[in-house]
Amino acid sequence: MTFGPQAKGVYAIATTPFLDDGSLDHASIDRLTDFYEDSGCTGITILGIMGEAPKLEPSESRAIIRQVVSRAKVPVIVGVSAPGFAAMRSLARDAMDMGAAGVMIAPTPALRTDEQILGYFAQAVEAVGTDVPFVLQDYPLTLSVVMSAGVVARIINDHPSCLMLKHEDWPGLEKISKLRALQARGELRPVSILCGNGGLFLDFEPERGADGAMTGYGFPDMLVELIGLHASGRREEAHDLFDAHLPLIRYEQQLGIGLAVRKHVLMRRGVMTSDAQRKPAVSLTPAARAEVDYLLARLARKDARAAV
Amino acid sequence: MTFGPQAKGVYAIATTPFLDDGSLDHASIDRLTDFYEDSGCTGITILGIMGEAPKLEPSESRAIIRQVVSRAKVPVIVGVSAPGFAAMRSLARDAMDMGAAGVMIAPTPALRTDEQILGYFAQAVEAVGTDVPFVLQDYPLTLSVVMSAGVVARIINDHPSCLMLKHEDWPGLEKISKLRALQARGELRPVSILCGNGGLFLDFEPERGADGAMTGYGFPDMLVELIGLHASGRREEAHDLFDAHLPLIRYEQQLGIGLAVRKHVLMRRGVMTSDAQRKPAVSLTPAARAEVDYLLARLARKDARAAV
Amino acid sequence: MTFGPQAKGVYAIATTPFLDDGSLDHASIDRLTDFYEDSGCTGITILGIMGEAPKLEPSESRAIIRQVVSRAKVPVIVGVSAPGFAAMRSLARDAMDMGAAGVMIAPTPALRTDEQILGYFAQAVEAVGTDVPFVLQDYPLTLSVVMSAGVVARIINDHPSCLMLKHEDWPGLEKISKLRALQARGELRPVSILCGNGGLFLDFEPERGADGAMTGYGFPDMLVELIGLHASGRREEAHDLFDAHLPLIRYEQQLGIGLAVRKHVLMRRGVMTSDAQRKPAVSLTPAARAEVDYLLARLARKDARAAV
Amino acid sequence: MTFGPQAKGVYAIATTPFLDDGSLDHASIDRLTDFYEDSGCTGITILGIMGEAPKLEPSESRAIIRQVVSRAKVPVIVGVSAPGFAAMRSLARDAMDMGAAGVMIAPTPALRTDEQILGYFAQAVEAVGTDVPFVLQDYPLTLSVVMSAGVVARIINDHPSCLMLKHEDWPGLEKISKLRALQARGELRPVSILCGNGGLFLDFEPERGADGAMTGYGFPDMLVELIGLHASGRREEAHDLFDAHLPLIRYEQQLGIGLAVRKHVLMRRGVMTSDAQRKPAVSLTPAARAEVDYLLARLARKDARAAV
Repeated sequence: MTFGPQAKGVYAIATTPFLDDGSLDHASIDRLTDFYEDSGCTGITILGIMGEAPKLEPSESRAIIRQVVSRAKVPVIVGVSAPGFAAMRSLARDAMDMGAAGVMIAPTPALRTDEQILGYFAQAVEAVGTDVPFVLQDYPLTLSVVMSAGVVARIINDHPSCLMLKHEDWPGLEKISKLRALQARGELRPVSILCGNGGLFLDFEPERGADGAMTGYGFPDMLVELIGLHASGRREEAHDLFDAHLPLIRYEQQLGIGLAVRKHVLMRRGVMTSDAQRKPAVSLTPAARAEVDYLLARLARKDARAAV
Repeated sequence: MTFGPQAKGVYAIATTPFLDDGSLDHASIDRLTDFYEDSGCTGITILGIMGEAPKLEPSESRAIIRQVVSRAKVPVIVGVSAPGFAAMRSLARDAMDMGAAGVMIAPTPALRTDEQILGYFAQAVEAVGTDVPFVLQDYPLTLSVVMSAGVVARIINDHPSCLMLKHEDWPGLEKISKLRALQARGELRPVSILCGNGGLFLDFEPERGADGAMTGYGFPDMLVELIGLHASGRREEAHDLFDAHLPLIRYEQQLGIGLAVRKHVLMRRGVMTSDAQRKPAVSLTPAARAEVDYLLARLARKDARAAV
Repeated sequence: MTFGPQAKGVYAIATTPFLDDGSLDHASIDRLTDFYEDSGCTGITILGIMGEAPKLEPSESRAIIRQVVSRAKVPVIVGVSAPGFAAMRSLARDAMDMGAAGVMIAPTPALRTDEQILGYFAQAVEAVGTDVPFVLQDYPLTLSVVMSAGVVARIINDHPSCLMLKHEDWPGLEKISKLRALQARGELRPVSILCGNGGLFLDFEPERGADGAMTGYGFPDMLVELIGLHASGRREEAHDLFDAHLPLIRYEQQLGIGLAVRKHVLMRRGVMTSDAQRKPAVSLTPAARAEVDYLLARLARKDARAAV
Repeated sequence: MTFGPQAKGVYAIATTPFLDDGSLDHASIDRLTDFYEDSGCTGITILGIMGEAPKLEPSESRAIIRQVVSRAKVPVIVGVSAPGFAAMRSLARDAMDMGAAGVMIAPTPALRTDEQILGYFAQAVEAVGTDVPFVLQDYPLTLSVVMSAGVVARIINDHPSCLMLKHEDWPGLEKISKLRALQARGELRPVSILCGNGGLFLDFEPERGADGAMTGYGFPDMLVELIGLHASGRREEAHDLFDAHLPLIRYEQQLGIGLAVRKHVLMRRGVMTSDAQRKPAVSLTPAARAEVDYLLARLARKDARAAV
C-alpha cells in the first residue's frame, strides 16, 4: 500500500494520546496505530490539527513520528504546518528521514488572495524540498483561508510533489465535482482526494469523486466499510450505514468539543487509556458525556461496533 | 397562543418567496403562512437572515409584514436588525403598528467585548422602545459576535421587554444548560428559549431546557411533532424521528446553499411557486438538487410527509 | 470637469450632516457642497461608508443625492453598496436619473477568493447596468475583502464602465506601483486612481502613480494644494505640507472615532452646524476633543487654515 | 532599574537579527542589546511578535534568551505566547532560570468573550507559575482579541504577578484613561502601562497616563528622549520631537512591511549586519527602500540621529 495520487480508502487522522498528567501516552500510541490498521485504514496522518500538534514540543513531535512510523505497515503522513518555513522544513526532513511517506501542509491563516496562497505554497514546497511528497490541506472553517477549485488545481499542477488533497471545505461537495471536472478536461493532473470534516458529508463525497476519507471519527472501521460500499456501488447500503452513524458524526463534528468527543469514544472503545487533552482544551461536561453515551447506545442497535 | 416568556413549540423562520423575476410572490406568502399554521407552528418569524431581509426595500418589508400579520392567527415576530438604529426603530414601530407580536434583534457584527454587546442592546432597546417585546438572536457563526451565557442573561435581565432567546450558538448545548442553571439559581428571570441552527441539535436541545425551535427547516410539521414527543417524555420516539430527518437537516444546514435547499424543499412540497432567491445568492447545481431529492426519497420511507 | 479615467485631483468623501436630533441638516449639506467646491475639489463622493450611508432610509439617500447633485458644479459620485443587488440597482438608477456622474461599489464583506470577487462585480455591473460609470472601492481594512492588483486589473479590464479606483488598501503603496506597471505593459487600460485611507500616505501615493485623493479629511483645501504641489514636481514643499498635517491626519484616521474627529473639525471650521452622528456611533470624549483642538492649534502655526 | 508596577521609560521590542542565510546573527544580537541600553532603554523585550518568535526553534529561543540576559544590565522580558500551555510553561521557566525579569503573554486569537479571556489568563498564569512576573499584551489589531478596560483590570487584579500592560489597542487613548480612572477609584491596583503600536500615538499616550513605551521603532533613543520630555512637562518640545519623527513612525507602522522598515533602519544605523527576515516575510521593494531613506534624510535635518 503506497501513498500517491491513486491512494484510496481511509487515512486516519490520529489523535495524540496523553495520560491524565499531560505526558505522552506511548502505550496508547501503539494501540492506536494498531487499531487504525486493524480497522482497515490505508494510511495514518499524525500531528494534524486534531492531533494537538501545536501543543507539542519539537522533541515530542519527533518521538511520536518515530514511534508510529516504526510500527505502522501503512503509509504515515506527518502534519508539518508551522508559522515559519524553517520549522516546517526541519520537521518535514526529520519526518522523511524517519520513514514517513509524506507530509501535510495547510495554508497559514493570514492568506487571502489567490496570489498570496499560490506564493505561500511555492515557498513551502521550496522549504520542505521538492522531493518530499505532500498532502494539501484545504480547511477554511478553521484556517479562514478560502481556496477556489482553480487555486487548488494550480497548486497541484505547479507542484508534482503534491499527491493528495485533504478536502474539508464546507460546504464542499461542489468543489470535489469542480476538481474532477478540471481533471476530466485535462486541466488537473490525477490526484487523490480524501475528505475530512469529520465525515459529515461522506454519504455523498465519494459519489462526487472523492477517493475516500481522511478524518478521525471514532469509528474508522465504519469509515472503511462505508468507502468500500461506495466503491462497490452499493449505494443504499452505504447511505444506511452512514445514516446510522450520522447522529454521532454530527455530534463529534462540533468545533471545540469535537476532539473531546472523539477521545472519549476511543477511550470507551478501549483504544486509549485516557481522553485527556493538553491545555487549553474544551472537555465534556457530564451532560455531554451522557449524550455521547446515549448516542453510542442507540447506534449499538444498528452497529455492534458501538456496543462498548 | 401568545408570544411571551412561556412561549413553547415551533416558531417558523419564514423564507421570503420570490417569483423567478425576483419580485415578491404574494400568493406564496399566503400559502406559506397557512402552511406554517397548519403545521402546528406556534409562531412565525419573518424578515430574518434566512428571509433575505437585507435584500428587500423598506416598502417591500412593510408589505410582507402587513400581509403575514393580517393573515396569521399565531404571533408574528419581525426581524428588525439594521446597521443604524433609526431604520431599526422605524421598522419596529411600523411592525408593531401593523400588529406584529414583537421584533427580533441580532447584535451588529462589529461587537466584541461584553461591554460593547451590552451597550448595543441598551441602545437598541432605547431605539425601538421599551414597550416593544423582542427576541434576542444569538448567532455567532454568521454574525461573528460571541455572547457568553452571562451576557445573554444580563441582556434579558436588563430589559424586561426581552421575552425570548433565539439560540443558535454552535456548539450550543452547554449554553442552554448554563442559562437554565442561572434561572434555577434566581439569576435569570424566566425566558423562552427557542433553538435555531436549522435544528441540527434538536434531539438534545429540549432535554437541555429549550422550549422549542425557531428555525426554517422545510418540515416544520416534523419539528412540531418532535417538540411534542420531547414534551411528553417520549425520548426514544423523539430521537427516532429526529434521526430519520437528520440527513436532510444536515444537508440543509450548510452555510450559503442552505437557503437554496430549504426553498427547493418548500417548492417540492407545493408551498412555494418558485425557489428563486434575490441576488447575490447561491443556487443548487443539478447534482445538489439530485442529492436533496434522493434524501427526500429515502426519508419518505420513514416519514410520509417527505413523499413529494 | 468630468468624471473619467483621466480624472485627477481631490474627490471629497462627503460626511452627512445631521442636526443634534439625528435629522438631516439640509443647510449644512449645501454649505458642505459649496465648501468642497471652494476648496478646489474636482469631485464629490456622497453616501460612502464615512457618509453613514447604511444608517439612512432610502428616501433620505435620494433627498441627499438630489440636493448635492443639483447644487454641485463638479461630478458627484454616489456610493451604492448594498447587501442585495436589487437595492443597489434601484439606488444607482435613481442616482443617475438625478444627475450623478457615477456610482461607487465596494465588494460585500463575505467575499474571499479571486473568483468570488470577480463574480460579484460581474453581477453588480449587470445589476446597475453597463451604462453606469462606476468607481471600484478597494478597502480591505474595513471590508475584509483583499483584492490583489491582478484582480483589480481584471475588474477594470472586464468592465469598461469602471473608470476609477478608490484605493485604500493598507499597506497600499506597492499596489499602486503594480497597477501602473500593469498599465505600462498594456495589461491594464488607463484608469484614475484616487487614494483614501484618510490621506495617511498621500506624501508618497502620487509619486507611485496615484492621480489624487478621494478622502474626507477635514482640510480638503490642503489636499488640493498637496496634489497640486505633487503635480508640479515640488516634492519638498509637498512633503512639508503633508508633514505639517500628518499629526491630525493620523489622529483622524483611527477606526471608529475617525468620523467624530472629522465632523468636529468641519464644525470648528464653520461648515457644519453640528458634529452629530446617527447611532450607533462613537463620539469624542472631552479629552479627545481637547487633543484634536490642540493639534489644530499646533497646525495653525504652519497652516493658517487651521486657525479656527 | 527593576521590572515592576512602577516601571517607566522605554522597553525596547527587540528585533531578532538574522544573517542573510537565515541563521541567527549572534554578533548583531550583542550589538543590538548594547544599542538599546546605550539608547537609555529601561528594559528589553525579546521574542515578541515583531521578534519573529514563532519562526524560531525552541533551542534558538533559548540561545537568544541566554545571550541577551547575560549581556543586558536592564530587565529582560521574554515573550512566551504559544498555542499550548505546556510550551508556554517550558519557555517561561527556562527564561526565568536564565535570569529573565519576566515574561509577556498575549491572548490566543480564538478568544472572544470576557469569560473566555479571563479563563485563558487564569490557565496561563497557572501554567507558567504564579511566581513568574508577567506583562499582559493587549494587541487587538493583530490578535483579533478585544479586551475592554474592565477585563484588563480584572486580569491585573486577579493575578498579582501581572506587573505591566503592553497597551496596543487601536484606537487606544481612551483605554488608558479608563484604566487610570479605575485605578484612581481604587478598582485597579497600580500597574505599569507601556504603549506599543510602533509609537503612533506616543504624543498623547503619556498625557493619558501611560508610563512609557514598549515598542521597537528604529529610534529608541528618540523614544527615551520623548518620554523624558513628557515626564518633565515639556509638552511642546515633546510634540515637536514626536512630529518630526511621525512620518517615519507612520511608515514603519504598516502591518506586514513594518518589520522590514524597522530592520532596514537598524541596519542603516549600523546596529544590525543584515535586515534579513525568516520566511515567510515581506521585504522592501526598491521603491519602498528609497522612501524610507528619503524619510530618514528629511528627518536628519531636524534630528541628527537620522543622519545615517
